[in-house]
Amino acid sequence: MSSVGQVIRCKAAVAWESGKPLSIEEVEVAPPQKDEVRIKILFTSLCHTDVYFWDAKGQNPLFPRILGHEAGGIVESVGEGVTDLEPGDHVLPIFTGECKECAHCLSEESNMCDLLRINTDRGEMLHDGKSRFSINGKPIYHFLGTSTFSEYTVVHVGQVAKINPDAPLDKVCVLSCGMSTGFGATVNVAKPKKGQSVAIFGLGAVGLAAAEGARVSGASRIIGIDLNPSRFEQAKKFGVTEFVNPKDHNKPVQEVIAEMTGGGVDRSVECTGSIQAMISAFECVHDGWGVAVLVGVPNKDDAFKTHPVNLLNERTLKGTFFGNYKPRTDIPAVVERYMNKELELDKFITHSVPFSEINKAFDLMLAGEGLRCVIRMDA
Amino acid sequence: MSSVGQVIRCKAAVAWESGKPLSIEEVEVAPPQKDEVRIKILFTSLCHTDVYFWDAKGQNPLFPRILGHEAGGIVESVGEGVTDLEPGDHVLPIFTGECKECAHCLSEESNMCDLLRINTDRGEMLHDGKSRFSINGKPIYHFLGTSTFSEYTVVHVGQVAKINPDAPLDKVCVLSCGMSTGFGATVNVAKPKKGQSVAIFGLGAVGLAAAEGARVSGASRIIGIDLNPSRFEQAKKFGVTEFVNPKDHNKPVQEVIAEMTGGGVDRSVECTGSIQAMISAFECVHDGWGVAVLVGVPNKDDAFKTHPVNLLNERTLKGTFFGNYKPRTDIPAVVERYMNKELELDKFITHSVPFSEINKAFDLMLAGEGLRCVIRMDA
Ligand SMILES: NC(=O)c1ccc[n+]([C@@H]2O[C@H](COP(=O)([O-])OP(=O)(O)OC[C@H]3O[C@@H](n4cnc5c(N)ncnc54)[C@H](O)[C@@H]3O)[C@@H](O)[C@H]2O)c1
Ligand SMILES: NC(=O)c1ccc[n+]([C@@H]2O[C@H](COP(=O)([O-])OP(=O)(O)OC[C@H]3O[C@@H](n4cnc5c(N)ncnc54)[C@H](O)[C@@H]3O)[C@@H](O)[C@H]2O)c1
Ligand SMILES: [Zn+2]
Ligand SMILES: [Zn+2]
Ligand SMILES: [Zn+2]
Ligand SMILES: [Zn+2]
Repeated sequence: MSSVGQVIRCKAAVAWESGKPLSIEEVEVAPPQKDEVRIKILFTSLCHTDVYFWDAKGQNPLFPRILGHEAGGIVESVGEGVTDLEPGDHVLPIFTGECKECAHCLSEESNMCDLLRINTDRGEMLHDGKSRFSINGKPIYHFLGTSTFSEYTVVHVGQVAKINPDAPLDKVCVLSCGMSTGFGATVNVAKPKKGQSVAIFGLGAVGLAAAEGARVSGASRIIGIDLNPSRFEQAKKFGVTEFVNPKDHNKPVQEVIAEMTGGGVDRSVECTGSIQAMISAFECVHDGWGVAVLVGVPNKDDAFKTHPVNLLNERTLKGTFFGNYKPRTDIPAVVERYMNKELELDKFITHSVPFSEINKAFDLMLAGEGLRCVIRMDA
Repeated sequence: MSSVGQVIRCKAAVAWESGKPLSIEEVEVAPPQKDEVRIKILFTSLCHTDVYFWDAKGQNPLFPRILGHEAGGIVESVGEGVTDLEPGDHVLPIFTGECKECAHCLSEESNMCDLLRINTDRGEMLHDGKSRFSINGKPIYHFLGTSTFSEYTVVHVGQVAKINPDAPLDKVCVLSCGMSTGFGATVNVAKPKKGQSVAIFGLGAVGLAAAEGARVSGASRIIGIDLNPSRFEQAKKFGVTEFVNPKDHNKPVQEVIAEMTGGGVDRSVECTGSIQAMISAFECVHDGWGVAVLVGVPNKDDAFKTHPVNLLNERTLKGTFFGNYKPRTDIPAVVERYMNKELELDKFITHSVPFSEINKAFDLMLAGEGLRCVIRMDA
């Protein structure tokens, strides 16, 4: 019997309160409404952002909630007005959307859709302000419009990238967020030329994806900067050729880098969220042509501060969101870069657990172990 | 009798001490040495930078000195090793140079030559650390390597742009500094697309040249921002379509501009030197694609300060020096744009005086009257 138009009962990992282990529950997933798609999730991975909103220390708490936003799945059914997707399509849900109609979507440069731009506080669907998830009729909140810690989820069509059905979903699921963010920050925004030097601040998953972007771009030197020296061993696999720990020096790290490089690196990408690293990442690029790109999410009260002469000396400072990728237009091509063996993803996936052990993925991330843990929904 | 290889005696306007009227004196101008050119100056104009170093309040005083750096002239003779130029060539001396050999000159993006980058403190020639000017054997200091307030001057070949001999030197002389700086800031760095909106902070000569760049680029709206409302009338001739005086509003001018433009301008160019204007110019550009370009020279202790989220929302912040033009490679083509009637220069030249009345040009600038006063050397 077809599930189309019916409520689906399935398993989901529900966060009932901040910081408490998720519990696997049977939930009801309502059919997709106008401009929505219901997706059977096959693989999902854990990103820091899930942990931030689970922990809910610096964030508005919203519970009970189904977290999760890096995932791969297959369209089960589509709501009214959806013409781009049909049941059976292989897709990646994305935490930020593309309506294809607003000024941002129509601009070649922006991916900050007015309608579907990331909204961490919203727990319901746009169409009717209601949740599609419930337990015994009581609503469970959505997260980022994706809520992929569920066997089935409902997502706005503008947040769904249709990808090559041959792509292995257990690998490309990580392109939904962190890997695309870091990789795109380098290849779409910093744009190093072949042979140029690139500094990467922060060697977590996002920074290593930025390093992967530098490798693919043919950078001659990839200098990794992290306060945590245990990050350095792993980073070697990602083409990082030199390491600097700011703690090992008694002068600002931007000066150390300028000395190593005859005046500064050609490009830098900041993937830490630390305001000090943002300033260093800017000030360590070469005058005349250097470009610095900020990726990390800062604290509310941080201020970026530099002497304006650093700018007048022809340095460029930019920030990026989701690597400047438009989710529907661009992500399918990133999947193709993986399929063509240009971009490596497997090395980012350091762990894998069955859905029933999803809390282990949280433990690994809290312990700072590994990069991405893929959660297998069917297991 | 040829003057080649001989000391030339001619008239120069000498600044003997800070803030005192220049006095026209007979000076000796030594022949050009290795990689130098001696130029007969026909027209020179006055720029704020001359006034700053004459006034010498915020600057290191260096006197006696021959000021002047915006000019047009004809090569009289060349020193050893000079192959690109010969007597009779029409040229513009430029305050910053291009050696064609350093990393900056070899970079497509930079014009900040390692050898010949602007140096306001140097009063002698690079080759031998000596001055080519003297009065009764006593040296008179150079300024910016150009010292164009003299009938003859000696300039490093890397600071000389060879231009179309048909170009009227009494007009194109203003391309030596301010006009190219503002125009290039828009066309080379901010790069507005046809139909985009551009905000110009500061409606002095540099800002109006930036507005001219916006007009030539086909900007749909050119919003001029100045604290001095008397600037607005003149700016209309430069295609500025709307005006904002920050003093007329009780909220930050970036918010006023965002309201006028549905979220921000596409491009902004800051030509004030005020740190507050720099911050406003950055924060008034649209998220997703806005680009802000800083041109004004700030105070030593200024700090550029903004919330990093303004960057992460995909705004770009850049600075420029001399409009990113390489003096020898690019300025001849800017002269051609004037010859093709694409770029208008005549409207910048609001006054003209004979050399004997050069102090009138200072008076006009100190009174804030007009934009450029051209000084006729032969008169
Ligand atoms: N802009 C976007 O679209 C987007 C998307 C996803 C993640 N992010 C952000 O990217 C950042 C990195 O994410 P991640 O998952 O890789 O995080 P992570 O915590 O795994 O890695 C961050 C690394 O930065 C290092 N670090 C911290 N402060 C530092 C400093 N001052 N100097 C040098 N290194 C420093 C840490 O030791 C750590 O190794 C976070 O701020 C995250 O919020 C942004
Ligand atoms: N980067 C370069 O290569 C280069 C070259 C030449 C000049 N400059 C700099 O460009 C700037 C402009 O030069 P100019 O000759 O046009 O100067 P100017 O003094 O004629 O014009 C500056 C204008 O800015 C206005 N202004 C000042 N503070 C303001 C504020 N907070 N908001 C709005 N308007 C404000 C003033 O009222 C004035 O009209 C100066 O800082 C100069 O040093 C830079
Ligand atoms: Zn949109
Ligand atoms: Zn994420
Ligand atoms: Zn050079
Ligand atoms: Zn000048």
